[in-house]
Amino acid sequence: MTVSVDYPREFKGFAITDPKDWDQPKLTSYEPKKFGEHDIDIEVECCGICASELFSLKNEWSNAPLACLSSSYGPKSQVVGHEVIGKVVKVGEKVTLAKLGQRVGLGAQASSCMQCGRCSSNNEQYCLKSVGTYCSRYPDGYVSQGGYASHVRAHEQFCFPIPDDVPSAFVAPLMCGGLTVYSPIKRNIEGVEKPKVGIIGIGGLGHMAIMIAKALGAEVTAFSRSNKKKDDAIKMGAQYFVATGEEENWSSRLADNFHLVLNCASSTTSLDLNAFVSILKVNCQLVSVGLPEKGETFDLSPFTFIRNGCSMGVSKLGSRQEAIELLDLASKHSFQPWVETIDVSEDGVHEGLTRLDRGDVRYRFTLVGFNKFFGTGFQ
Amino acid sequence: MTVSVDYPREFKGFAITDPKDWDQPKLTSYEPKKFGEHDIDIEVECCGICASELFSLKNEWSNAPLACLSSSYGPKSQVVGHEVIGKVVKVGEKVTLAKLGQRVGLGAQASSCMQCGRCSSNNEQYCLKSVGTYCSRYPDGYVSQGGYASHVRAHEQFCFPIPDDVPSAFVAPLMCGGLTVYSPIKRNIEGVEKPKVGIIGIGGLGHMAIMIAKALGAEVTAFSRSNKKKDDAIKMGAQYFVATGEEENWSSRLADNFHLVLNCASSTTSLDLNAFVSILKVNCQLVSVGLPEKGETFDLSPFTFIRNGCSMGVSKLGSRQEAIELLDLASKHSFQPWVETIDVSEDGVHEGLTRLDRGDVRYRFTLVGFNKFFGTGFQ
Repeated sequence: MTVSVDYPREFKGFAITDPKDWDQPKLTSYEPKKFGEHDIDIEVECCGICASELFSLKNEWSNAPLACLSSSYGPKSQVVGHEVIGKVVKVGEKVTLAKLGQRVGLGAQASSCMQCGRCSSNNEQYCLKSVGTYCSRYPDGYVSQGGYASHVRAHEQFCFPIPDDVPSAFVAPLMCGGLTVYSPIKRNIEGVEKPKVGIIGIGGLGHMAIMIAKALGAEVTAFSRSNKKKDDAIKMGAQYFVATGEEENWSSRLADNFHLVLNCASSTTSLDLNAFVSILKVNCQLVSVGLPEKGETFDLSPFTFIRNGCSMGVSKLGSRQEAIELLDLASKHSFQPWVETIDVSEDGVHEGLTRLDRGDVRYRFTLVGFNKFFGTGFQ
Repeated sequence: MTVSVDYPREFKGFAITDPKDWDQPKLTSYEPKKFGEHDIDIEVECCGICASELFSLKNEWSNAPLACLSSSYGPKSQVVGHEVIGKVVKVGEKVTLAKLGQRVGLGAQASSCMQCGRCSSNNEQYCLKSVGTYCSRYPDGYVSQGGYASHVRAHEQFCFPIPDDVPSAFVAPLMCGGLTVYSPIKRNIEGVEKPKVGIIGIGGLGHMAIMIAKALGAEVTAFSRSNKKKDDAIKMGAQYFVATGEEENWSSRLADNFHLVLNCASSTTSLDLNAFVSILKVNCQLVSVGLPEKGETFDLSPFTFIRNGCSMGVSKLGSRQEAIELLDLASKHSFQPWVETIDVSEDGVHEGLTRLDRGDVRYRFTLVGFNKFFGTGFQ
């Protein structure tokens, strides 16, 4: 099937209008946001499926109704997707960071103020006026629409040039998931001699974290509840594997060992955070990148941390500079996320979302065939 | 009243045998721990009263009975006190860090293994074999006895030389409280240009934190619920004061401002941690040094941290090197904790503990007159 898109007047994508129907996005036409002088239009070639999509579509990160429904301007339906690879087909008059025809990637952030201290210090992901690639309101009221679509429009700062030697379907998951783990790993082990990194949860984020930490020179230990994913984790580059559910004294055996423990599991409730904190070296951090449901909290006592003066925190995405570093690292070390591709269509989107929801993924899905489906890619 | 002590066979101190009687320590004689080759005996001149004492005496940090009661060796009663200033009256044969007759200070730690990676990297306070100055079990079973006493015995590493120009009663609170705030302030602002530090809770710890952060070159903002302590905080060296209970939008006004927020309040339950995290700069820390009751936990959602990639942690005491730096800083900047002195005796100890318990202290008590009371100080 090929549909036609009346670009640039309209974009087409797979949208929901009610979180109850989160797993059944329907093909929809919609008006793009107003084109800004720093904006880029990307003709989508493929798009990764990130677990954030499930939380967003099911509305588990918020109790508010879909933002787009209350918007005075823009579509009344919601397209998700923020691991986009595609071709630049239009550039605003002030764009200097990308060229027409160039292959670029877009992650979970589409805009920021570009003026604050954070934007000017490689921390634009923490800009207080940041706009996410979907479900996020621009200053003019338009609610951003994501990459399960023919096209996406975003500020040039967040469109990263992709090195020629990395295939689109495999690099897509680096745009959000990969960058989300790269940033805290890099920031926490930079300058550390023989860094040791622990990765909790061998899923979409965790499997990329293993590869990335290894490529950054760390000795990686992967933590999972059972031994089921042991062989996979070792293949991904973990030097050690710990099945926390099958070894009673793992935390005392590993006490005082790690410069960083990165939690890539979505839920923290079922983790023994005390045990994971105890394996850190003095003043080091347990960083969580898996965001749980809105109501879930960390179950932490100050006494948890006092034995090593450690802390627990959260990291959000990464900066443009870090995205470019990550792409360079992927190219130099030839690592690729383990990706299963699914042809894009209403059925394909449904399949990807529902299989991800039940954990039937090893380890990441990329929706492909956008050019064929949308009749694009001929320019 | 002067009592006589048959030193070195016995020490005398104010001890409890039951947490129910936490506020009525009785004068007691007891056998000191076996004298080690790195040990020092300090003839106590004065001793600060630290809030830790209340938690320890009331048994709020543990549900176990007093450790000394189950010990096969040593006293069956518990003396507390870990902000000791006194004179070295005996040194072990391998002692090199102190001399007979020297004035030294002892804080909350009395021993560590001196062999592990932490002990050899200025992190001996995090040694997993650390022994506290009181209520803490030595490898041989003896439960450590604190400084509300004629004498204290401790490993030389934890006995810090006191500069001549700082008076004992005023320097005593630096030994535990001062060091506890110095270490996280120094570690978090070192190398930061124009550091901004927020101090929560203007009590025993907080008032020293203000002076210390200022002496370290930081711009200090003090946070308290009401304006009651505003004038005091400004006198201590705070540049700004925020009464969080009296200004609705303080956290949005101060968003993205601080390199460190140090929580010096004992309880975290009543703090709006979300607000305090929001005033941090990217990747900075909220560090808590006030240890609450055992059952109290941090009420934290991962979403609290995601807007600035921050973390929350705990810091414990400080290293010998940091204690020496702190004493040097106090001497150079001539800052002194605000101390009310109380003459030591059963009544004096009772008065100090009960007044501290009801918050009737501005801002720290030091028990003084030990030489007179115990008939020491003549050597």
